[in-house]
Amino acid sequence: MIFRQLCTPRSGLLTYLLGDPVTREAVVLDPLPTQVETLLSFMAERGLALRYILETHMHEGHQEAALALKQHSEARIVAHESAKSAHLDMCLRDGDLLYFGEETLRVIHTPGHTPCAVTYWWEDRLFTGETLLATGAGRCHPRAGDPQKLYHSIASRLLTFPGETLVYPGRESKGRRLVSIEELRRHNNWFNNRRGGQVFLRAYQRLLPDKAVKEESNNTGVQEDDVHHYMPGRDVSASS
Amino acid sequence: MIFRQLCTPRSGLLTYLLGDPVTREAVVLDPLPTQVETLLSFMAERGLALRYILETHMHEGHQEAALALKQHSEARIVAHESAKSAHLDMCLRDGDLLYFGEETLRVIHTPGHTPCAVTYWWEDRLFTGETLLATGAGRCHPRAGDPQKLYHSIASRLLTFPGETLVYPGRESKGRRLVSIEELRRHNNWFNNRRGGQVFLRAYQRLLPDKAVKEESNNTGVQEDDVHHYMPGRDVSASS
Repeated sequence: MIFRQLCTPRSGLLTYLLGDPVTREAVVLDPLPTQVETLLSFMAERGLALRYILETHMHEGHQEAALALKQHSEARIVAHESAKSAHLDMCLRDGDLLYFGEETLRVIHTPGHTPCAVTYWWEDRLFTGETLLATGAGRCHPRAGDPQKLYHSIASRLLTFPGETLVYPGRESKGRRLVSIEELRRHNNWFNNRRGGQVFLRAYQRLLPDKAVKEESNNTGVQEDDVHHYMPGRDVSASS
Repeated sequence: MIFRQLCTPRSGLLTYLLGDPVTREAVVLDPLPTQVETLLSFMAERGLALRYILETHMHEGHQEAALALKQHSEARIVAHESAKSAHLDMCLRDGDLLYFGEETLRVIHTPGHTPCAVTYWWEDRLFTGETLLATGAGRCHPRAGDPQKLYHSIASRLLTFPGETLVYPGRESKGRRLVSIEELRRHNNWFNNRRGGQVFLRAYQRLLPDKAVKEESNNTGVQEDDVHHYMPGRDVSASS
């Protein structure tokens, strides 16, 4: 398998390229505008044909890059059916399968960060976007997010995978770009404790800007990134 | 691929099982006596036939477990040709290939922890034993180790792999059991700095017990584990 993880320096956002070395078919996950040239030259060098541009969630940068990549290939832009975008070529549902070459990707609907957030599952790897990061739970989008759904997606879907499963997130956190399900389970009290869900939600309520602030942020053009630091850290104990 | 990582609670030592799901052939890396029953029942449940018992280095516990596993299978005990053991069925050299089912493991001789230390390379994963841990350089064996060779094995062999390559060490360190080459390169000044080798060796000299103490430890039966905390941490800057 051809596999690349690309990190955008300042934002820490992560993009992935997966390629089948036999049929030379490839997919790209969450591309960003600054990576389009790198991705195109990498695929040209390796003789890879892009089949799908996959979005784990809708993000302005993703959309721009997806359209740029599509101009140079026959790739389809793909996201969850609840994603609001005029540029989608294919809408996904939970359980869908995507094929490229001899490889298969499975779609797991993991709403929470946004209603359209999905995780792509390939072999023993999960591409979790903003839902699950290397240091624990991801963030909720300030307007479209839902902490309760995020908790459910992580606790009842993602953390039920075998411990050896690798999590490749959509964003670097505390310098880390990769983790195993086993390590996440071991270090996140929220998810291995029966009171964890309540504590998680209380932490979110306390740390997120209140609704009035959120409404205001809509008008003042505050971007998603501005609220990312409101995410409660993984060190908050469920028993606190 | 069937893949399991087993951790022995107090020592933090890690054992691996790799199995080919088609031919049902398997290998075990660095087994320990406490895991023999778990490994045997796992293989029986999954209908796996053990082909090789692989040692990344010689360790008393490994040998005992290897012999116990061999009693229940036709597996061969395999280690580097410089390993001192009467129980080896096959001696390895750098560059050797090992096959189980349709899978291939490559042998990389990485002396330093001991002269016989090897890394097994499978797909995009390296099983590094005590040579390279999830938080940085491994330790030298108090008598048989050689810090200069350890540095060379890590800097000139292992860290030259693509950044996405996964490192599965033989021991948990700071709660971590897995890392990527990219993360190791980013967080270990010793290996991305031209003066790093000298600083690494000085740190080792300072932290290791002196020769007299080592000789004494031979006589008093001090075990390898007793000197593991002399390992310099990854936070020591190469510029210090």
